[in-house]
Amino acid sequence: MITFDTRPDAYRHWQLTIDGSVATLSMDVREDAGLSPDYKLKLNSYDLAVDIELADAIQRLRFEHPEVHAVIVTSLKERIFCAGANIMMLRGSSHGAKVNFCKFTNETRLAIEDASDQSGIRFLAALNGICAGGGYELALACDEIILVDDGNSAVSLPEAPLLAVLPGTGGLTRLVDKRRVRRDRADFFSTLVEGVKGKRAVEWGFVDAVYPTSKFKEQVQRHARDLAAKSDRPASGPGIALNPLNPTVTDAAIAYSAVTLTLNRAKRTAELTVKAPEGPQPATVEAVVAAGDQFWPLRAFRELDDALLRLRVNEPEIGTVVLRTIGDRDAVLAIDRTLLANQSHWLVREIILLMKRTLKRLDLTARSFFAFIETGSAFAGSLFELALAADRSYMFHDDAEENAIALSDMNFGPLPMSNGLTRLQTRFLAEPDKIDALRAHQGSFNAGDADEEGLVTFAPDEIDWDDEVRVAVEARAAFSPDAMTGLEANLRFAGPETMETKIFGRLTAWQNWIFQRPNAVGEKGALKVYGEQGRPEFDWKRT
Amino acid sequence: MITFDTRPDAYRHWQLTIDGSVATLSMDVREDAGLSPDYKLKLNSYDLAVDIELADAIQRLRFEHPEVHAVIVTSLKERIFCAGANIMMLRGSSHGAKVNFCKFTNETRLAIEDASDQSGIRFLAALNGICAGGGYELALACDEIILVDDGNSAVSLPEAPLLAVLPGTGGLTRLVDKRRVRRDRADFFSTLVEGVKGKRAVEWGFVDAVYPTSKFKEQVQRHARDLAAKSDRPASGPGIALNPLNPTVTDAAIAYSAVTLTLNRAKRTAELTVKAPEGPQPATVEAVVAAGDQFWPLRAFRELDDALLRLRVNEPEIGTVVLRTIGDRDAVLAIDRTLLANQSHWLVREIILLMKRTLKRLDLTARSFFAFIETGSAFAGSLFELALAADRSYMFHDDAEENAIALSDMNFGPLPMSNGLTRLQTRFLAEPDKIDALRAHQGSFNAGDADEEGLVTFAPDEIDWDDEVRVAVEARAAFSPDAMTGLEANLRFAGPETMETKIFGRLTAWQNWIFQRPNAVGEKGALKVYGEQGRPEFDWKRT
Repeated sequence: MITFDTRPDAYRHWQLTIDGSVATLSMDVREDAGLSPDYKLKLNSYDLAVDIELADAIQRLRFEHPEVHAVIVTSLKERIFCAGANIMMLRGSSHGAKVNFCKFTNETRLAIEDASDQSGIRFLAALNGICAGGGYELALACDEIILVDDGNSAVSLPEAPLLAVLPGTGGLTRLVDKRRVRRDRADFFSTLVEGVKGKRAVEWGFVDAVYPTSKFKEQVQRHARDLAAKSDRPASGPGIALNPLNPTVTDAAIAYSAVTLTLNRAKRTAELTVKAPEGPQPATVEAVVAAGDQFWPLRAFRELDDALLRLRVNEPEIGTVVLRTIGDRDAVLAIDRTLLANQSHWLVREIILLMKRTLKRLDLTARSFFAFIETGSAFAGSLFELALAADRSYMFHDDAEENAIALSDMNFGPLPMSNGLTRLQTRFLAEPDKIDALRAHQGSFNAGDADEEGLVTFAPDEIDWDDEVRVAVEARAAFSPDAMTGLEANLRFAGPETMETKIFGRLTAWQNWIFQRPNAVGEKGALKVYGEQGRPEFDWKRT
Repeated sequence: MITFDTRPDAYRHWQLTIDGSVATLSMDVREDAGLSPDYKLKLNSYDLAVDIELADAIQRLRFEHPEVHAVIVTSLKERIFCAGANIMMLRGSSHGAKVNFCKFTNETRLAIEDASDQSGIRFLAALNGICAGGGYELALACDEIILVDDGNSAVSLPEAPLLAVLPGTGGLTRLVDKRRVRRDRADFFSTLVEGVKGKRAVEWGFVDAVYPTSKFKEQVQRHARDLAAKSDRPASGPGIALNPLNPTVTDAAIAYSAVTLTLNRAKRTAELTVKAPEGPQPATVEAVVAAGDQFWPLRAFRELDDALLRLRVNEPEIGTVVLRTIGDRDAVLAIDRTLLANQSHWLVREIILLMKRTLKRLDLTARSFFAFIETGSAFAGSLFELALAADRSYMFHDDAEENAIALSDMNFGPLPMSNGLTRLQTRFLAEPDKIDALRAHQGSFNAGDADEEGLVTFAPDEIDWDDEVRVAVEARAAFSPDAMTGLEANLRFAGPETMETKIFGRLTAWQNWIFQRPNAVGEKGALKVYGEQGRPEFDWKRT
């Protein structure tokens, strides 16, 4: 079972050091400490284990070190920054494992960009040596890239020519859309095994600057200081500690404090339940800081994030997930008010951003989600985003009209999807005026109102409820998992496309296609014969 | 060998009738007249042969019938509009054939929308019966959809639940992005084999109106007249005839009047050469009309379009195409001036739109294109778009500085890519100011200038030229065809995404993925066992 809990003193592949406002995250991959003993992580190549630590480090810098304003991403290996994703790992992985690996690394790269855009933590890729494939894609996620000019060190995307796959972590998209490298140059570069170095790397826009070895370290510090100076983060800490989540894991469930994931493997379904806060909650910044990682929204969304990640990598056959909430709607709305009233405070900002990223993780999880809104539920404000993220929502229409949902200002901006719109905007693309009307609405919506306003998909009454939701889940779980993945990937992201949706839509979809083509993964495919005797044999048909 | 030439009196699957400003295109598929005898096209289901006629009909209405302002798309079969793509055809097709089939049908649907948006020909889908899968996707491409309310006729997208594939002709994208159907309703609908009919079909936005059988015909006419009234096309004809292209086809070449495609199957390469106009050319609208389909831009781009289509479906192993032009640059620039000076005339407008669609067809062709700009070439104005569409361009840097390229106003707006930008805008995303500077430039660019301005990728001199271009083509042709297809699909379309790029990027890529998953095409896959004894068996792992 793969888990995502780690901490800096347990890292095996990264060293995190902090010097005033500048942190340094140094890659030093241990060859024998990958997720599987079947491959060695040579030359700072990586697998999911390496990326889990990177994701953890970025998350901790946000919460535990508000005084950090810039991060240098570099390597402790001589003359090598990073060789990219480990090829033997890719060769030995199932299709699903490859796809999930790429999805997580993509999310980590986007978390770097989110930290830069939204949290004021700027990233400098200090390429002290060869930077290939996924290594260069990591650099592309940083704000600036500087490369040592030693006659040898180059940046490259050799995946297509060497392995017959795509650079799968956003590299192609970031080349032409983020760095706006000319498409013909990007084409040339992406077929060049040896990559580009020195002056041409700067002229063509692949890196921002090159420096001779003698000046490299000094220039790294200068660039990092310049980046740090632009931050709006606090001048000093302390931050708050992100303690281990320590869920209770049994064969059929993962139980956290506010989140429970229950698995029904025979039916290939799961239930994911989020509990609203109970009892008195912090209402001031001071109380929020004092509560630290036990403050409900931080705790609940960290747990939700962890549950989604475990579901993805450890439970591939669970295809359909029922989302539920329980508890006090008003308590959720009160939390939302506290967050919004204090969003200029660095910690509150970070909490909201973590909620945003977790909900995006849900949008991007290749499982069908149905929200069941029943009596005693707490689909209000930020928790109502779960219902909006679901592929469908079913709301029990009780005779007493006590079952209700509610909106808060958290539904109208702070938690956008990858497409840059809120989930309500995406839902009501056809009726943009509806957004203002919903925002002006006072109070909650009972099932009849929610149905009328289009906030839920169906609102069956007591006579129909049991059969309707049972049949819906059973039918969904019986469909082809591939067809559902493709369907959801196309229906969930209406409206504008962004670099982020391009990466997860266009790029990922093509990579997934290539990841199961015989030219890549067949017995004579490039990924299979790389490093072995002989050359790949291709079916030359273009499609 | 599949060809794309046809004409209304040779149609086997459609009947085209014209009554004043309203044309009626009636589907009446002949079961035994598909491309292959291996399947029967029952219930107005279709294969590529049916769609080639549809594409031809739309093209002819544009050029041959300027008096047509609206088109009714309907069926001559009782109680059935169209059952979608033929399942036995899909089952028996290779992966490449399925992908190319979907690409062509997508282009045909987009040609319908282009005719509506740009040419003022509005389309009414008059659904006189069951409308399933690709049949509904055809309807979605029309401006309005009306459905008979007979208690039986429904619209549906049953691909995912029945066949474990996606509706592959833009249906999912058009549901949520064009018709802006709520994503949860779209999700429900797309898993419902029987579809939606009557009042709910209108309320949920799947169709625009339903009418009882007794009023259906009369309402079809009324809707068509209303749509026709909005057109800016001429009140009366005549149009110009689109005569057969009649290329000379040998084993190694297809030679048209202005276009030659030469194949080198052993090297998996081809050369596609376009000849500039020769001799006096029409310079007035009257002369253009008199020249008809022999007017150079119409003739050359029809030929180019046909060559690209034949290359796609008949030569799957040709992976790399060298683009050349020959002749008089100034003659091309003169044609461009004539077109732009008269673009308000219906025929000139149609010619420019056909050039635009043909260049998009090139952008969307899954082959590598390298433009070779050599002495005697005619890469000017609209023909320079070929170099801009290429993945790379190589310009011979001659000592005499006679080899040159030139821009015209055709490069600055009338020929946008699927992303809505011109090829120059896409190329210079990083330097938007450059566009104005290039437009202000007088005269041609020699190789040094073109290289300096970033208009070409490389400009080797006499010493390097032969080796450099030879190695470039050989290297390209040796890479995995799948990796090149994925690479090009991601690098060619930087900048904004549109419904069109979503269809060809996100939707098509996911469909291609599913089209080779065992859950769809394996021995127990849904596409294989549909209609046979037994049920599909799925690998339940989600990816």
